[in-house]
Parts: sequence; structure tokens; C-alpha cells
Amino acid sequence: MARSNVCHTSFGRAAVHDRIHYSKFLDLRMSAEQAADLVKPGMTVAMSGFTGAGYPKAVPGALAALMEKEQAAGNPFKINVLTGASTAPELDGVLARAGGMNLRLPYMSDPELRRRINDGEMEYMDIHLSHVAQHAWFGFYGKIDLAIIEIVGVTEDGQLIPSSSVGNNKTWLDMADKVILEVNTQQSPALEGMHDIYYGTALPPHRQPIEMTTADQRIGEPYLRVDPSKIVAVVETDAPDRLSPFAPVDETSSQIADHLLDFLDHEIRAGRLTDKLLPLQSGVGNIANAVLAGLSRGGYKGLQAYTEVIQDGMLSLLKDETIGFASATSFSLSSDGIEEFNRHVDFYRERILLRPQEISNHPELVRRLGCIALNGMIEADIYGNVNSTNVVGSHVMNGIGGSGDFARNGYLSVFMSPSVAKGGKISGIVPMASHVDHTEHDTMILITERGLADLRGLSPKQRAQVIIDNCAAPEYRPMLQDYFDRAKVSSYGKHTPHLLGESLSWHQRFIDTGDMRPGAAQA
Amino acid sequence: MARSNVCHTSFGRAAVHDRIHYSKFLDLRMSAEQAADLVKPGMTVAMSGFTGAGYPKAVPGALAALMEKEQAAGNPFKINVLTGASTAPELDGVLARAGGMNLRLPYMSDPELRRRINDGEMEYMDIHLSHVAQHAWFGFYGKIDLAIIEIVGVTEDGQLIPSSSVGNNKTWLDMADKVILEVNTQQSPALEGMHDIYYGTALPPHRQPIEMTTADQRIGEPYLRVDPSKIVAVVETDAPDRLSPFAPVDETSSQIADHLLDFLDHEIRAGRLTDKLLPLQSGVGNIANAVLAGLSRGGYKGLQAYTEVIQDGMLSLLKDETIGFASATSFSLSSDGIEEFNRHVDFYRERILLRPQEISNHPELVRRLGCIALNGMIEADIYGNVNSTNVVGSHVMNGIGGSGDFARNGYLSVFMSPSVAKGGKISGIVPMASHVDHTEHDTMILITERGLADLRGLSPKQRAQVIIDNCAAPEYRPMLQDYFDRAKVSSYGKHTPHLLGESLSWHQRFIDTGDMRPGAAQA
Repeated sequence: MARSNVCHTSFGRAAVHDRIHYSKFLDLRMSAEQAADLVKPGMTVAMSGFTGAGYPKAVPGALAALMEKEQAAGNPFKINVLTGASTAPELDGVLARAGGMNLRLPYMSDPELRRRINDGEMEYMDIHLSHVAQHAWFGFYGKIDLAIIEIVGVTEDGQLIPSSSVGNNKTWLDMADKVILEVNTQQSPALEGMHDIYYGTALPPHRQPIEMTTADQRIGEPYLRVDPSKIVAVVETDAPDRLSPFAPVDETSSQIADHLLDFLDHEIRAGRLTDKLLPLQSGVGNIANAVLAGLSRGGYKGLQAYTEVIQDGMLSLLKDETIGFASATSFSLSSDGIEEFNRHVDFYRERILLRPQEISNHPELVRRLGCIALNGMIEADIYGNVNSTNVVGSHVMNGIGGSGDFARNGYLSVFMSPSVAKGGKISGIVPMASHVDHTEHDTMILITERGLADLRGLSPKQRAQVIIDNCAAPEYRPMLQDYFDRAKVSSYGKHTPHLLGESLSWHQRFIDTGDMRPGAAQA
Repeated sequence: MARSNVCHTSFGRAAVHDRIHYSKFLDLRMSAEQAADLVKPGMTVAMSGFTGAGYPKAVPGALAALMEKEQAAGNPFKINVLTGASTAPELDGVLARAGGMNLRLPYMSDPELRRRINDGEMEYMDIHLSHVAQHAWFGFYGKIDLAIIEIVGVTEDGQLIPSSSVGNNKTWLDMADKVILEVNTQQSPALEGMHDIYYGTALPPHRQPIEMTTADQRIGEPYLRVDPSKIVAVVETDAPDRLSPFAPVDETSSQIADHLLDFLDHEIRAGRLTDKLLPLQSGVGNIANAVLAGLSRGGYKGLQAYTEVIQDGMLSLLKDETIGFASATSFSLSSDGIEEFNRHVDFYRERILLRPQEISNHPELVRRLGCIALNGMIEADIYGNVNSTNVVGSHVMNGIGGSGDFARNGYLSVFMSPSVAKGGKISGIVPMASHVDHTEHDTMILITERGLADLRGLSPKQRAQVIIDNCAAPEYRPMLQDYFDRAKVSSYGKHTPHLLGESLSWHQRFIDTGDMRPGAAQA
């Protein structure tokens, strides 16, 4: 629907000059090492990449090597790194290991990077994914010195064919003083035409309505624009996106998916949803995969997804027509998924659009479309406050990602987690969340493998009882009930009853003993 | 700009039949007591009213008397009450005192109602003001049995002239099974034509863009529609909105306003704002008044306000042309303000529009317009998490109101508070917020009379140092620094360093001793 008729540039698979049809850029070809030499200490460098897709694969490694050499010679070399979301070891891993980042934003998942952040060795800013581009434009992150962007190729008129993710690339290309392009011949030329780059954004007071009313609507252009005079280097790469292993659906995730499917059935029977549901947003990970697999079992047909990431599970749903169209900002496919995509690319091309994350996550569009937001969490408290980011309030896992964009503005906000983690040592339901990313005002449905709590229309105390009864693990349920019962009697105020001296004691016990259960660590 | 040319129905001031030009409704006139008899136990009743304006003034009192009579006879009589925001003693006060509410939403400020909620005698749901109407339509609050709506009058074709607030009235009139109208002859007939009721909302997947690009743009109609067959009673009233005393600007509020004005100057010099700023949203209360007064001193001309409430201070700014146009959902004027408004009504009519709160607070519009969100708070923690609602994590004051709608989606989110409360016994800056309404992802600027912390582009630890240095009161600053320094060493994770056993100890100390300062209560 409303897809423009895109002319395919016929690219070969092998050499970079087959991908670059704008001759001026051919002269700027150089090695990754030469390109890395253009990066200077203290620069703010914006890079492509979103959930392990479309990130630059060569220059960051060469840069990390350069940093290590300089640092060994006594010359400090750190930069600020801005991306779309998480990348891969070839970017975040190597730069973290080199100690090369002052500041990283807005989302990450690399283990080495996470370790450095939580050891206090570097700074990390965790930002709503819909906010990053506008905050950059507002000037909140200062000048962007350089952008390093992976692309599939360049058209004859110098436009860029985006890669397997869009993320913030439009903004980085527009804002950066200089640009390094990585042309990756491993990325399928069939990606050309699957992107929808919206050029209607502006700074207030000049903003206009975004005229999109359905998830499958094209509102932009298939190519990224760039001022050719900004391009300082073109680097050839030939490496696949880092493969996300696609874990088989486990029992717990499957039970969570079943509770969600029962709930959706219930909502349809109650007349609040039709069997077309509303556009689905789904986080990443095993539970999200299980939920997607469950939708297929549920017999739905012709649904739409308005989400961030296309995972393997989404391809299956498109294939069996459970989902008719998926809008996202990134692919995050395993090697099997990439093979499936490439084999049936003409099928998928008609059913997928990749947009800038400013658009995929835009509050205006998420509210208008009425997305059903399905996200994971670390923990929820008995009043429905959700912690998506910080283990025991201080150790950041990945970041808030787009969960806030969708949970605040969608039709339904659903948060899912196993009721326990680490073999029962951690409860997913706690007296008080140790960090709050989604407030009591923003959470509607909580699901664990134990059951589902529907918090809509409930006061804090009503929510607490439903969450304890339906979602808590059996070994933690009496502890939660005991806390809640005593809080209702002794709390300072009884709107959101709490015993402050005790409210975070489960987390402290975990820090002290490795187990939230009293006495369990000694057993 | 784009104001429609509204024909004024010529109303007299005195009798209700001069206000009702639709004869069918004249036959439905009855006393408040007769109308109250139409309310039955267990009903969900939606009422007009937003920040002390436009609430029904007679039926709630008659209903409270009926409830007390029935309860004395052993017949329980409670209802659920939905409004726009806070009302007045004549509504929330009398119904709370009668013990007549099971559940109240979405915002309140009546002392008796607050006491009942915090004593655990009734349930209260605190909801983003932009969410209420859509959640009602989504069916989250169940069926709405009855609406009680104050109006100025009825046109010849049966349309309703809205009163001094719009709030959720459109939704209540559309959704309620039956409607009681209170026609208040104290409300100025000059209000006719000052409202902009948008009838373009829909349920997803049928939603369309809201085609508004400036705060002064009319997108709707001046009247509220109602199905005449729903009207079951018309009650005449002749009472003013409860007067909000307009406190003179105190020294602390004035200092906070000065810090904000300095910051706005700084932003203009940095080229991030022009001297027209961006549309202002301002919360209610003394600090908001001081800020408004400060804008006039600042020499600004022709600003726009896209906000919730028109207070006295806003009239002054319109008068001296600091503000050229103000969009809101409600008046909240003192008796002096009402007199000023009535005296110069032709001037104000051209410069003010009142819209449904779904529109005044709509995420789509707040983001598009790029509002500067100015809101008060109870406390902020060193990482920028803001508590707007619950004293020591459990005792609700008023509610989140529209602060989340504006802070999350605006161009700038500013939160303001004195650095201490209760003569120094409470610090406005704490190690960990005891309740989180605005997360670290949503707060940009914190201001106390001590100074301003600009958190944009900063990681949690960077934010903490700026907040401690710039915003904390001198007597609490060393305590905060000590906590932060020790947390950076001993915290489990060092992204958002916390000592969980101690993080809420200030609040617990206040509960135990009445003072957050160690040893101070004994002094």
C-alpha cells in the first residue's frame, strides 16, 4: 500500500566499485586504517548501527588499534560515541576494550562495554530512542565532528542506499561535519528500496504533522541524502552483521506468551480489540520471540507490526501471513534468517519498511496507530513501577531502548519477565523497584510465567494485590503479601503504602548474600 | 489567527431560561436535590471541573446530603468519580466528607479528599491528564453511567456553551448514558466562543493527524455537542468558581524564576532559542506565578503559551503583550482575576482558547510545538529522577497532572522546587527519590532557589555532581556529596551508584523524627 515504485540499481556482489555509482566517491576510497587516522581525540563520532545490524565493521577496529598505539605512547585517545542502539563486538567491543570512549549513548548490549560502564570507567547516557535525533538537533550533545555510516551503495546522483538498519543515520549524515562511509558488499543489494527515510522533520516552531495513518504507509524516500563535500573517506567492507543466536523457545517464555494470547483473546471477546489487533511493537529477546511464535499458533492473519526490529520470528510471521506488514528501523537476523530473507527477498520487500528510529518510535505515530507495546523488564514492583535498565538500582544492563516510547504512548503497555531469575535467587516482582524507567502511570499489563496482572483502572493498592496474586513466584508470594499487609497498616501515607526501611532490603540482601531469599544463601 | 467568527447568543445575566435557548431542556429543570436522586449507589459518575473551574456546584452537595442520609439509614452509598482534574470543596470536599467515593481519578487537591485517600479509606488513580479521555474510550474505566457538567448555556440548536474549563467534558458527554446539566448564571456569557472543542479524535486504527501547528490555531468548534435524549436534568446554579488566593511572589520563588530567566537568556545567546522562545507550559502555584511575573520583567514580547491553566499571572502577561496568545483547558482565576477578565473580555477573547485536556496536553501536539515545560516537584534525586506526587513515597499530594505529558514530549523539561521544605526539615534534593513520576530519561533542567542544574547530555554521575553543586541546600549538600562519594566506591554497579541500605534513609528519618537531618529533631 502506497509503496513508491523504486528502480533497482543493478549491483553485483563483489567489488566496491560495483556499489558506488557516483564517481566522485570512488576517488575517496582508502583503507580502514587510513580512515581511522581521520578520527582525533575528543571528537564526538556518530556511527550507524541498531541492535547488531548496519554498524560499521572496519573503521572502529582500526580506530581501536590506533587508540591502543597512541595510549601506549602516552597519548590519551578517547572519543564520544553516538549510535542508533546496540552494535556488536566489532564496534562497541573493540572501542571499549581500547578504553577509547568517554561517553556512549543511547543503548548498548556489548558485554565488555557494559563491564566498563558498570566499573565506572566511562560514562553512558540512556535515552528514549525517539528522543536521540531531536536532542542532537537541539544541540544537547554538542557538535558532531564525524559520522561513520555503513551503506549498501551509492546511486548515480550520490544518494546513499541504506544498510540493514536505519537508526539515526539521517540525523548523523545531516549534522556531522565530516562523513566516513563503509560500503559493505556483504549487505544484500536487494535492500535497495526497502527504506523509507522521512525528510519532513524540523525544529520547533517549524514542525508539521507527520502524515502517516497506517504502519504500511510510505512517507519518505528510499535513500539517504548526504552533502558530497562532507565525505572524507570511503572504506570497503565485506563482513556480515554479527549473528544473533536464535534461542529455541523455552518453557517459561512459552507460558508468558500463552498468558498474553489468552489476554488478547479476552480483549477481542470484550470488544476492545478486533481480530486484527492493533500494530504490534515487540522488544528483542527470547520472550519476544516466544510471543511472536505464539501469535502464529493463535490463528491471527494480516496483523501489522509497527516496531523497532525485524527478528527471525517476524520473518516467519510474514511468511505464514500472520503479519501482513512490518515497519521497523532495523533487521536483527541470524544467519538462517539472512538466508531466508535473501532467498525470498521479493516477498519480503513488499512487506517490510525500515525507517529512521525517530519515526519508528515517534510518540505522535505510536499514539495515533495505537500500538500494542510488548516489552521485557528486569523487575516490577507491587504498584506497577517497572525497572527496565538497572539491576539492583545501579548496574545498567542495556538501556531503556524504545520501551518508553511505546509504553507511554501506545494503546496497551505490556511488560513481561520470568517471575524469578538466577534459579530463584532474584524475584521479578519486588516491594519497590530499585530503579524506575516506567512509572505506575505507564504500565497496564504485567506478565510472568505465573500469570497476568491487568492493572487498567486500578488504584495502587488494587494493583498490588493483583500483581502479588497473579505474577509473583510461589516462594516470593508470601513475602510480598506480608510486606504489603504490614505496609497498609504502618505506612506513613496509605495511598502507595511502603515501609521505606525495608522497601529495598530484598535488593540489599541479594548484594550481600547473592540471594533475595532470607537465609537461602546459607542453605 | 484562524479564529472562527462566532455568533454571540445574547444572554442576560439572571435567570436560567435566558441561558437555555433550546426549549426541550427548559422542561427538564429541577432542583439539585431532585437531580441528585438520579444518582444510584455504585454508579460511575463523570463530572466537569479542572483546577477549581467549571465544576458542578449544586448537585454534588445535594448528592452528599443524600449519601449521608442513606448511610445513616444503613444503606451504603458510594460512587466512582471521574473529573478533568482538581475541583473544589463543593465537589470533592463534600463527597469525600460523606464517604461517598469508592474511586476518584485523575487529579485532586482538596484537603479532605487527600486525607481520606492517604488514610486508606478510598482508592485514587493518578493518571497522565492526556491519557484519561482515551482510557475511558478504550473501556479501561468501565461504563460511565452519568455525567454532571457545568455549562454557561444552551444554543438554539441544543449545543452546549462550555464553562470556565473544558477538561474531559466532551468525552463525558459522549460516553455517559445520562447527563445532568448545571447551568451556572454566574459564569460570564462572554465565555461563548472562547472554546475550541476538537471532534476529530477516534479510536485506533481510525486516528488521523491533528492538524495544528501553532498554539493559537483553532481546530474545532466553540460548542459541546450532546445527544438531547441523554439529558435527564437541568439544574440552575448561581455560584462563582472557588477563588484561588493569589499569593504574592515570595523571595524563594522569585529566585527560582531568576535562575530560569538567566537560563533562557543563555539559551538565546547560544542560538538554541529565539527571543520568541517556544510555547510555554506552566504548572500551577506560587513558583509558576513567580516565573510568569519574571517573564514580564525579562522584556519578552509576543510569546505563546500552550498550557493547561490560565491563572491571574497569565492575564497580566497577555495584558502587557509579553504573551500574545494562550491556549489552555481551564481558567483558574481569583476574584480579582475574574473581574479583570470580565472588564476586558473583548481583549482576552481574541487571545485565549480553551480546549479539551486531551488536546491541551496531547503528546503529538506538545512534541510538535516544542513546548517549554515548567513544572513543580516534591523532590528530585541526585540522578535526576523526579517525584511529583508522593511525600516519602506513600502520601499522595495532588497527582502527576499534565507534568508527564509536557516533560516527556516537550522541547525542554524543567522541574522547580525550593531546596528545602518545612523550614529545612525536608530536602528537595535526596539521594534516591522515594517515588518516581519522571524518570532520569525525562528531566533536563532542575532549579531551586540555590541554582540551576542543566542535565542535558550528562550521564548519571555527571548529573549528580551538578545537582549537588548547584541545587542542594547548604545544610544538605555535604550529606549528599558524602553519599555520592561513598556510593561511587561501594555501589554494586557504578553506572547509577547507590547504597541501597541508605538510599531512602533520609525519608525514613523524616518519618521517625520529623526531620531529614540527623540529630536535628533533638536539637
